[in-house]
Amino acid sequence: MLTLFFVDSELETIPEEMWKDDAVTQLSKKRKKKPGNLLLDSSLLHRSIDAYFPSSSKRRGRPDIFHILLNVLNSSIINILGELSVFIHTRNDILIKVNPETRIPKSYNRFAGLMEQLFELGEIRSGEDVLFSTEKKSAIESIKSYGSGKVTVMWPSGEHVSRNNLVEARDQTFVIGGFTSGDYISDLSHIGRRVSIFDQELTIWTVAGEIIAAYETYVGL
Amino acid sequence: MLTLFFVDSELETIPEEMWKDDAVTQLSKKRKKKPGNLLLDSSLLHRSIDAYFPSSSKRRGRPDIFHILLNVLNSSIINILGELSVFIHTRNDILIKVNPETRIPKSYNRFAGLMEQLFELGEIRSGEDVLFSTEKKSAIESIKSYGSGKVTVMWPSGEHVSRNNLVEARDQTFVIGGFTSGDYISDLSHIGRRVSIFDQELTIWTVAGEIIAAYETYVGL
Repeated sequence: MLTLFFVDSELETIPEEMWKDDAVTQLSKKRKKKPGNLLLDSSLLHRSIDAYFPSSSKRRGRPDIFHILLNVLNSSIINILGELSVFIHTRNDILIKVNPETRIPKSYNRFAGLMEQLFELGEIRSGEDVLFSTEKKSAIESIKSYGSGKVTVMWPSGEHVSRNNLVEARDQTFVIGGFTSGDYISDLSHIGRRVSIFDQELTIWTVAGEIIAAYETYVGL
Repeated sequence: MLTLFFVDSELETIPEEMWKDDAVTQLSKKRKKKPGNLLLDSSLLHRSIDAYFPSSSKRRGRPDIFHILLNVLNSSIINILGELSVFIHTRNDILIKVNPETRIPKSYNRFAGLMEQLFELGEIRSGEDVLFSTEKKSAIESIKSYGSGKVTVMWPSGEHVSRNNLVEARDQTFVIGGFTSGDYISDLSHIGRRVSIFDQELTIWTVAGEIIAAYETYVGL
């Protein structure tokens, strides 16, 4: 089993500080939902995010990258074969458990609606199946509870490792930052080896895709 | 150079037959664009597509999959290294040439707006750079003009090949169907070997990702 944790992920509902913002009020009317039940989406609210969170505005509110990421992960061959486990830990210490059999909406707007429902209800069901569920857990607790085998933390300034040396066992866990700029907020210093696979910035789905490719090569797919 | 062609891609503006449809008229008002300048998007217009194109309704209007696909391709390591060439041939024989340096919008709505502009203007520029350009060309002509090295056609019922045997040279071309169901519309029978890498249906970005992984392994990345 390959286990992937996306840590400090920039996936959250609109924080209370922003609820009285004009753009938020407008969006809330348009979407007919309370601000606290709407996703923070930088492509819709980047000016407001700049105003309220100047120090973290470059990274906040990125459901778009999780839409692409989860589509890449859940349609991968190792996921179809039942060898992939995916957890998304958010900046607010909410851990999202992704059912490998969940068909991720290819339409972004549907995906965003689903994430809003998930934050509101704590889980998403389809009949008897739980598609997504959440619990309150720090990054470290999440990795300790659900990680399996050796833990490797992907870190742009980590020790360089070639992709094909990333995976050394059938049971292995990788931690990837769930953000597009900056560093981990959670303290991961005692969690595992820190490695990098490339000398330039990569998107989170590229990093995850490289790990998946390494795993597939390792298991002889 | 790895060259990828997505053939018979379900990427098009709203066809003339549908312009008087009620849902299309409404969308056109809301978006303040003529129907012919709007993308056909099955997540917005699936009932109308069903009504006007019953025989192809399952596959028509899928800009969403190209949003995910191009994000996967253009952020891949081999693309950053300048070793990837991407062409999208549509069901209407429009060939879209993707500049490898184009940053694909992570927001779907921005991507869709860009594709609408592309179909309207024939190209998208940013300063002196051409981000996307189009020409009128059949699939075969496209592959003959821009393919490089041996051509392999990905085909679900093709001969099974293990991923790591897909790439046999530094210069190679792969053809992938740009649709989620059905078969190629273009006649590709004389184009090259038809192969399959997995016995179940895969998304186009999974197929492309596997080819990229095979290429990276081949060139020793």
